[in-house]
Amino acid sequence: MTITVINPNGSASMTKHLEQGCNDMVLSHHTLEFQYCANSPLSIEGFSDGAAAAHHLADYVKHREQSGMYTAGYVVACFDDTGVDAAREYVQCPVVGIGEAAMQFASLLGSSFVVMTTLQRSVPIIERNIERYGLRHRCAGVFASNIPVLALEGKPNNYDKMLTVSREALSNRFGEVLVLGCAGMSQWQEKLQEDLGVPVIDGVKSAIKIVAALSDLGLNTSKALSYAYPEQKHESMP
Amino acid sequence: MTITVINPNGSASMTKHLEQGCNDMVLSHHTLEFQYCANSPLSIEGFSDGAAAAHHLADYVKHREQSGMYTAGYVVACFDDTGVDAAREYVQCPVVGIGEAAMQFASLLGSSFVVMTTLQRSVPIIERNIERYGLRHRCAGVFASNIPVLALEGKPNNYDKMLTVSREALSNRFGEVLVLGCAGMSQWQEKLQEDLGVPVIDGVKSAIKIVAALSDLGLNTSKALSYAYPEQKHESMP
Amino acid sequence: MTITVINPNGSASMTKHLEQGCNDMVLSHHTLEFQYCANSPLSIEGFSDGAAAAHHLADYVKHREQSGMYTAGYVVACFDDTGVDAAREYVQCPVVGIGEAAMQFASLLGSSFVVMTTLQRSVPIIERNIERYGLRHRCAGVFASNIPVLALEGKPNNYDKMLTVSREALSNRFGEVLVLGCAGMSQWQEKLQEDLGVPVIDGVKSAIKIVAALSDLGLNTSKALSYAYPEQKHESMP
Amino acid sequence: MTITVINPNGSASMTKHLEQGCNDMVLSHHTLEFQYCANSPLSIEGFSDGAAAAHHLADYVKHREQSGMYTAGYVVACFDDTGVDAAREYVQCPVVGIGEAAMQFASLLGSSFVVMTTLQRSVPIIERNIERYGLRHRCAGVFASNIPVLALEGKPNNYDKMLTVSREALSNRFGEVLVLGCAGMSQWQEKLQEDLGVPVIDGVKSAIKIVAALSDLGLNTSKALSYAYPEQKHESMP
Amino acid sequence: MTITVINPNGSASMTKHLEQGCNDMVLSHHTLEFQYCANSPLSIEGFSDGAAAAHHLADYVKHREQSGMYTAGYVVACFDDTGVDAAREYVQCPVVGIGEAAMQFASLLGSSFVVMTTLQRSVPIIERNIERYGLRHRCAGVFASNIPVLALEGKPNNYDKMLTVSREALSNRFGEVLVLGCAGMSQWQEKLQEDLGVPVIDGVKSAIKIVAALSDLGLNTSKALSYAYPEQKHESMP
Amino acid sequence: MTITVINPNGSASMTKHLEQGCNDMVLSHHTLEFQYCANSPLSIEGFSDGAAAAHHLADYVKHREQSGMYTAGYVVACFDDTGVDAAREYVQCPVVGIGEAAMQFASLLGSSFVVMTTLQRSVPIIERNIERYGLRHRCAGVFASNIPVLALEGKPNNYDKMLTVSREALSNRFGEVLVLGCAGMSQWQEKLQEDLGVPVIDGVKSAIKIVAALSDLGLNTSKALSYAYPEQKHESMP
Repeated sequence: MTITVINPNGSASMTKHLEQGCNDMVLSHHTLEFQYCANSPLSIEGFSDGAAAAHHLADYVKHREQSGMYTAGYVVACFDDTGVDAAREYVQCPVVGIGEAAMQFASLLGSSFVVMTTLQRSVPIIERNIERYGLRHRCAGVFASNIPVLALEGKPNNYDKMLTVSREALSNRFGEVLVLGCAGMSQWQEKLQEDLGVPVIDGVKSAIKIVAALSDLGLNTSKALSYAYPEQKHESMP
Repeated sequence: MTITVINPNGSASMTKHLEQGCNDMVLSHHTLEFQYCANSPLSIEGFSDGAAAAHHLADYVKHREQSGMYTAGYVVACFDDTGVDAAREYVQCPVVGIGEAAMQFASLLGSSFVVMTTLQRSVPIIERNIERYGLRHRCAGVFASNIPVLALEGKPNNYDKMLTVSREALSNRFGEVLVLGCAGMSQWQEKLQEDLGVPVIDGVKSAIKIVAALSDLGLNTSKALSYAYPEQKHESMP
Repeated sequence: MTITVINPNGSASMTKHLEQGCNDMVLSHHTLEFQYCANSPLSIEGFSDGAAAAHHLADYVKHREQSGMYTAGYVVACFDDTGVDAAREYVQCPVVGIGEAAMQFASLLGSSFVVMTTLQRSVPIIERNIERYGLRHRCAGVFASNIPVLALEGKPNNYDKMLTVSREALSNRFGEVLVLGCAGMSQWQEKLQEDLGVPVIDGVKSAIKIVAALSDLGLNTSKALSYAYPEQKHESMP
Repeated sequence: MTITVINPNGSASMTKHLEQGCNDMVLSHHTLEFQYCANSPLSIEGFSDGAAAAHHLADYVKHREQSGMYTAGYVVACFDDTGVDAAREYVQCPVVGIGEAAMQFASLLGSSFVVMTTLQRSVPIIERNIERYGLRHRCAGVFASNIPVLALEGKPNNYDKMLTVSREALSNRFGEVLVLGCAGMSQWQEKLQEDLGVPVIDGVKSAIKIVAALSDLGLNTSKALSYAYPEQKHESMP
Repeated sequence: MTITVINPNGSASMTKHLEQGCNDMVLSHHTLEFQYCANSPLSIEGFSDGAAAAHHLADYVKHREQSGMYTAGYVVACFDDTGVDAAREYVQCPVVGIGEAAMQFASLLGSSFVVMTTLQRSVPIIERNIERYGLRHRCAGVFASNIPVLALEGKPNNYDKMLTVSREALSNRFGEVLVLGCAGMSQWQEKLQEDLGVPVIDGVKSAIKIVAALSDLGLNTSKALSYAYPEQKHESMP
Repeated sequence: MTITVINPNGSASMTKHLEQGCNDMVLSHHTLEFQYCANSPLSIEGFSDGAAAAHHLADYVKHREQSGMYTAGYVVACFDDTGVDAAREYVQCPVVGIGEAAMQFASLLGSSFVVMTTLQRSVPIIERNIERYGLRHRCAGVFASNIPVLALEGKPNNYDKMLTVSREALSNRFGEVLVLGCAGMSQWQEKLQEDLGVPVIDGVKSAIKIVAALSDLGLNTSKALSYAYPEQKHESMP
């Protein structure tokens, strides 16, 4: 079966990069497809980008399900886990955000992790998620590299900047694992892991593996309450 | 100056009710205007309604600001505080959600409050906000009346149902204040307060008062970081 | 109606300053009166000052209510919110402390705020309140300017000291709003806001606005449990 | 040396009961003296009683220390730990409240404890302390027997009421230890422990033992910051 | 490569059941082997069983690694996650406990889950883990079926007991997912899921899938700090 | 009666030092005996040392109790409180760890304390306990001196290192009390207290005093649930 990776932003180029990065993944039962949300902002940097992207992502999932294009599960490829809750209401299959996936895996490999993300304005949004996921005591800090999402693919010296930021963060906060705080950083997972000497987690591949696992085990989104299908609306007649 | 009350859902009828309910408010410096989001779901009951409404609300605020229609401040008239963070990025004036407003006032009047809302599926969403606002220890519970938002205006015996639910909640949890967990309940604030004998908080009027106060005191949304204006996007050139 | 601002310390001079600072407030329905607690310590710096002041403040409110001198509501003008809970037992009207008021407003304007107060010994007391109000995740830190309360009015170069302390605090902790952690700092709200470029919150005016709002909305202190009138004491007869 | 047990309320009779209850304590190095605060309310039931009592207790300690009547340490014999922080500022010796003492001991004897106190209005005050002491996860609940403090000494059938309340609390909440939530309940510690079959903690004796231990070990109140001696006040000269 | 599932208790029969239950798992790269700790207690019910089992489990892993019998990763098949931290120090590969694995998966499928375990005495141990994993707000309660671990395999009417306990727990606490709180319950995952209509999580298979994923992604236990190889001991020479 | 101090590690020499350090303690009713766990690691530095030591400690207590060698209570002389929960299941008397004892006493003497321990790898283990004891808000930080446990007895210049680490920790974090984070540091309590000018807490003597107090007051480990005697195991017959 297919696992659908949706990039909630509107960047075709970034989505292509994500797809290339997953070329080498071996999945026994599943194949991958990659989508993006054409009407979304090109990158998700802050609350207003997030609100637009959440809507477009949920809308994409809704129309797809309504047209019967079922999938084994969705991976939402933004570290803010944009629109994950909304998407879950429209489906029965699992929907997993790369932020929660990455931080779950990080929790299994060390006592504490640090997150390196793009801009400082994304830090409060990620910290809010960390709080909600209950991982505040596990996360030794969220740090900005000050490289915008769309610049991640570009300049080669960005790597050095990221290496410096994450090395200092790990050292100052006694972090034991590094979590990549943006889907666009996936490409550097291997190199960073080698250079830093600690596990480095890429949420995209982590979430794909988790969706595959949930699918294999027959575990679906609970339709009992929070993620029940949306209500039918009936304007009351006075 | 004008304070703009936006109902993030798409119900003209509910918005008219809100407006009528505020007719008797005395505001020294401000007048009120009421808007709704025509493309939004008719009511906000769950995550997917919320994601759509957040987008439409933020969009409304964005276009309005871009066309120079400034206002003294915005009240977001959904108890889930839908889209409040996104809207703040587009403006300099204050933006206040009725959920946070109501629960702040409730905290000042008793050691603990209970929230009565509409459907059970909204409870986890409200609890998430309560957690984020830090009010978990002040909130003695969130209870569903099991009356859908759009039915609130309709049947007269809904009042008895709400009275029973809130009386039991207050008594079982030793609550000292009742918070109305939906903008559509505003109309019953006075009667419930009389029947229950404890303060009953309507978020709509509370938030209007807070926006008026912030405006009078020259206090605006901080543009320092989280609520800075949205980033300009530049797709990187390889 | 009158709103009564009580300075729980014993300084006539500081109270006069507070009154002057509020001269320009426009309140539609209310007038202001300012009181202080003649038997209290001249300033509240630590637990023992606070215990004395809480008693004198509560006593003032009690005797005033017993003599029928009702008011629309009380503002307690010490950032430690000294005696607020005790005072609430004697009245039906709202009683609001400037600490909680200022931090509520700050929460509505940015993701996180920093507090600048007077002496380091006051920091644990304020942090205890912040914990109790549930605002620990919103407060990025409480910092001492090391200027005693009674020196605040005096030397002009104190301003520079406060500006430096708050600028560093905001920058190091990514704070988005500054909260003035002492009633005696109100006079510098405007200038600090201009120099720092972020919202600066003065609790005195914030609390006055909140009390006015609660009064206008007919919202009173709940007499249901915590703030019920004090018990009558009957020594049991063996 | 002498350990001074101060009842912060104004009841001579209750204080005499406390003294009698401690007659059988064996203390190697220390003798006990019992005091009460003649100007305090006869019992401490709520915030306003507490504010008055805190002031009188701190005042008693202050004058005593100023007149050179040193003691090995103070026990504050009210379960609300009324005035403990303020008293610490005046002395170098340890000052321990019976609430914190009892709940510390309870934490060492079982995974969770329940507190039985007098009136429901005291519950929020005790819960606030529990939160502050960090024991929320250890405390399975605070329950009111609905017997006023001053009635505790009186009627014999009060015992049955307390037994029933604590038995149900332990059973419903899987509590493993009972904490007596009022100094006036000390007399029933032994009988309750026998009838309930779980450890029952009396704070008065617990705190006496802790003060004796701290004194023996040469451990004093830290004067480094929070509990430094009170500031000298100098009204600034303009 | 092989994934090693270790049952930290000493029951060969229970381990055989676990193995049989995993017969139908499809794993692309991995094969499974099942071990138990012959010197451990037959079941782990409480702290002392856990202390013995943690030691024997860590010892097993240590000797195995020292003899060069490497594995792709370890699954610790006790819901208390007994000895997981200790085992991590001896290896480079991932070590995952079934408790954390199950509760991570549960968090991805609903807003809140309930845990059904065996005896009441295990509840505080599981709650301690939940607290440590940060999942307190996601877990709506831990409930005991009062069926001892070793009786799980036996009587057929145990199923009805478990069904009743979990149905009531889900309904009373608005739970959306059920987590099986003992490895011995794996056999009923499918049937319970069908009968309850919500996702039912078995930690054994969940942890196997996670270890396989971590192994595929080249993610190992961090040796940076907490899980560094044990210290060499040198008794100091006086 | 005798109080039994058990060092859960295997160092005879360190245990002798502990005994010598307690020579000057005056205990009215009790005498002291000191034991160590011959099969345990020589020091406890990390999770695997801890797992082994917990098992050996619990085993020692179990066999001792089974042979009828009762004691007034046990002190577990490792700052990690290794095996305390397990030991409690085997006895009726109190079992107190030196970590919890020291931090309880520290909480009574200042608003916040800092812990100085041996190696950095012990910090996450101690922080986990602090979290569990609810003392996170009271603890201003746990700092490593980077002196291994077994080196503590040896070099004289280690004292200077410890003094520097603790002075900086207290100053940077506004700590008011120092807690010694290893039983092997007891010998320096007095000198550090003199040099630092704040209370310095040694857990060994603190825990001895607490066990003596509990014993005098007739307070035992609750056998109601968590610490009930271990279950009898019966492998079910298919």
